[in-house]
Amino acid sequence: MQTLWDQRYAQRTQRMMGSAIRELLKFTENPEIISFAGGLPAPEVFPIKEFKAACLKVLDEQGPQSLQYGTTDGYLPLREMIARHTARYGIEVTSDNILITSGSQQALDLLGKIFINPGDRILVESPTYVGALQAWNAYGAEFIPVPYDENGLITEELEDKLRIGPKFIYVLPNFQNPTGGTLSFERRLKLIEMAERYGVPIIEDDPYGQLRFEGEHLPALNVLDSQTRTQNECYSGNVIYLSTFSKTLAPGLRLAWVIAPPEVIHKLVLAKQGTDLHTSTFNQIVAYEVSHGGFLDRHVKFIREVYRERRDVMLETLQEHMPEGVHWTHPQGGLFLWVTLPENIDSKDMLVDAIQKKVAFVPGESFYPQNGRKNNMRLNFSNAIPEKINEGIALLGAVTKKYLIKKK
Amino acid sequence: MQTLWDQRYAQRTQRMMGSAIRELLKFTENPEIISFAGGLPAPEVFPIKEFKAACLKVLDEQGPQSLQYGTTDGYLPLREMIARHTARYGIEVTSDNILITSGSQQALDLLGKIFINPGDRILVESPTYVGALQAWNAYGAEFIPVPYDENGLITEELEDKLRIGPKFIYVLPNFQNPTGGTLSFERRLKLIEMAERYGVPIIEDDPYGQLRFEGEHLPALNVLDSQTRTQNECYSGNVIYLSTFSKTLAPGLRLAWVIAPPEVIHKLVLAKQGTDLHTSTFNQIVAYEVSHGGFLDRHVKFIREVYRERRDVMLETLQEHMPEGVHWTHPQGGLFLWVTLPENIDSKDMLVDAIQKKVAFVPGESFYPQNGRKNNMRLNFSNAIPEKINEGIALLGAVTKKYLIKKK
Repeated sequence: MQTLWDQRYAQRTQRMMGSAIRELLKFTENPEIISFAGGLPAPEVFPIKEFKAACLKVLDEQGPQSLQYGTTDGYLPLREMIARHTARYGIEVTSDNILITSGSQQALDLLGKIFINPGDRILVESPTYVGALQAWNAYGAEFIPVPYDENGLITEELEDKLRIGPKFIYVLPNFQNPTGGTLSFERRLKLIEMAERYGVPIIEDDPYGQLRFEGEHLPALNVLDSQTRTQNECYSGNVIYLSTFSKTLAPGLRLAWVIAPPEVIHKLVLAKQGTDLHTSTFNQIVAYEVSHGGFLDRHVKFIREVYRERRDVMLETLQEHMPEGVHWTHPQGGLFLWVTLPENIDSKDMLVDAIQKKVAFVPGESFYPQNGRKNNMRLNFSNAIPEKINEGIALLGAVTKKYLIKKK
Repeated sequence: MQTLWDQRYAQRTQRMMGSAIRELLKFTENPEIISFAGGLPAPEVFPIKEFKAACLKVLDEQGPQSLQYGTTDGYLPLREMIARHTARYGIEVTSDNILITSGSQQALDLLGKIFINPGDRILVESPTYVGALQAWNAYGAEFIPVPYDENGLITEELEDKLRIGPKFIYVLPNFQNPTGGTLSFERRLKLIEMAERYGVPIIEDDPYGQLRFEGEHLPALNVLDSQTRTQNECYSGNVIYLSTFSKTLAPGLRLAWVIAPPEVIHKLVLAKQGTDLHTSTFNQIVAYEVSHGGFLDRHVKFIREVYRERRDVMLETLQEHMPEGVHWTHPQGGLFLWVTLPENIDSKDMLVDAIQKKVAFVPGESFYPQNGRKNNMRLNFSNAIPEKINEGIALLGAVTKKYLIKKK
């Protein structure tokens, strides 16, 4: 049916593409399908008992406050707790450096809103988190892909792209979505040095950093940047740091945070006022109640064990069921791994076969800002229980074998 | 301290102004000040007992689902409940016409995102809701003020402005923020007729419509627009309708909704994916549990009684304490009334005196898109208990008397 709205969409609306991932979430609602497609945490690990206790405590002790409008920057005890937590990783900030957002996706949106003019160039890993592309497409960003390998973005290929004068560099240093890859320590140093030399700031998106199963913690870009400053400047601020409660506590709360210089936080607060006033007061206070006093630390340790087991099961069953010529990453943490099929295979087409066999993944092409490689699959290992991973990878292995023979 | 971000703000960031209202909320945190400044519901009416029961039930019966990622359009039973509720007011839609947003402010932001190109002209009531100006300023909107009187926007002055070719008209028909005014039935008909003639669609923002204390319910613009169509088209869609749970249930949940044609909902969903993925699953399911089965209806009746009493107390004490030459509106519902001081008074200046005497309001000038009148105050009557209203208006009356003498 025609309405007067049909001819009135803004130009930017034409740039908004549906996300293949979000569309695929629809399949995951069919319980017959074993889905490795979503980026969903394991629902079994949600601390439901602790949420019940916290909801009751908050409603008993702070009921009116928790249901009332709140400040745009966020619940102060929660921001202070985040400051204490991040200090342990060397990010030494106060609550003035922290804005609570409605999920990390909103942090990306607000950063786009305050920084991106149409036509601005943004350096991104290729492949990268598709949600960032979606958020910044709406503001007219042009994405400059930086090639990526098993050690993260390839700093050797950065110089030419820095000369273009990008507005900022967007990096997911730990257990990246979609590949599961981690930026090596040497490349972290090199990236900070080059960003400094060319005067280009960095947005560091770190939703998975705490979910490391093996290997040593690597310092955040934010920390390395601060260390290049004089001793008097404890926080330099050229690296804006994002993280979230979605992967450690629960995504259904929509709670994340931005760490940035106070001037940037001020602009983000103005933007957030016009965007959604503030993030749910109730959820912020409940998240604080659940997390503080050491529970979150213990809980994160538990999640690491659960996800490590699921990753191991997926790695083993891939080894068992995938035909020759298929390779995959060995992520040291996070939620995802990345399968590379032979060059002649388009994983989008293979997905049709897979869904018929009741198994799903995300075709890798979605994650490229442009000219995406077609022969990858992103597999999530956090959501399904080990038995289902076993069963699903066996199905996916069979589909892949059959498809590879068909395409020969 | 200088950072690389300082020189990198987008042009639109210069258009983002802090809201006087939000800044004033800081005063309301000082418990010594009686604040009529915020737009806060009465915290005493929040149904805390029902929230406790709902949180426990949801965590017991749908724990994993309620804490997991959800769909962008929103929790289906909640959207279906909204469709049933609005049908009683003649807005006959299905869940496909409804998007759940993170507060009405997000609905305004997303509508701006999908519809407004820089330079687009938007017709707004003058004065109007300042949050809409903030939301759409970020997308480069130019606001064309339509004069406003005690019967709402003056439709007689609309024709010239419709000829300019505005993208849409933004109207708050019931107990408008900031004036408390209501668009008369005759003007509703006239507005729909003229919008139809000039082919300009309408955004109808109705956060307060259910909070009517006296007089007859007036049909929504959305309903009047549908009635001008042929019988076969039960929903025409040229009027997008917004409402919220913030004024009936609790603002701290950040839950509101948009009613629009499915094509518009589809674009809003794409925009919301890039903006914050989805609204809190937990809050949506809890709000559904609290509301359905008749509780929300009973609760709204109760809120009406509480707010009617507070409005009456404010009207009486204004009568008692305000000097001659000061006038105010008599709202039939909602949260606000609008005081007009003598023409030579700048209420911004008077606010300084008021805060010294421990009482606060919002200067009217903030609510005008341009060339605002300076001699108004917006007073909120929903938040303070009757005794405090009494006390606060006595203080404000004394401040006003003194200030008027000073300015003579």
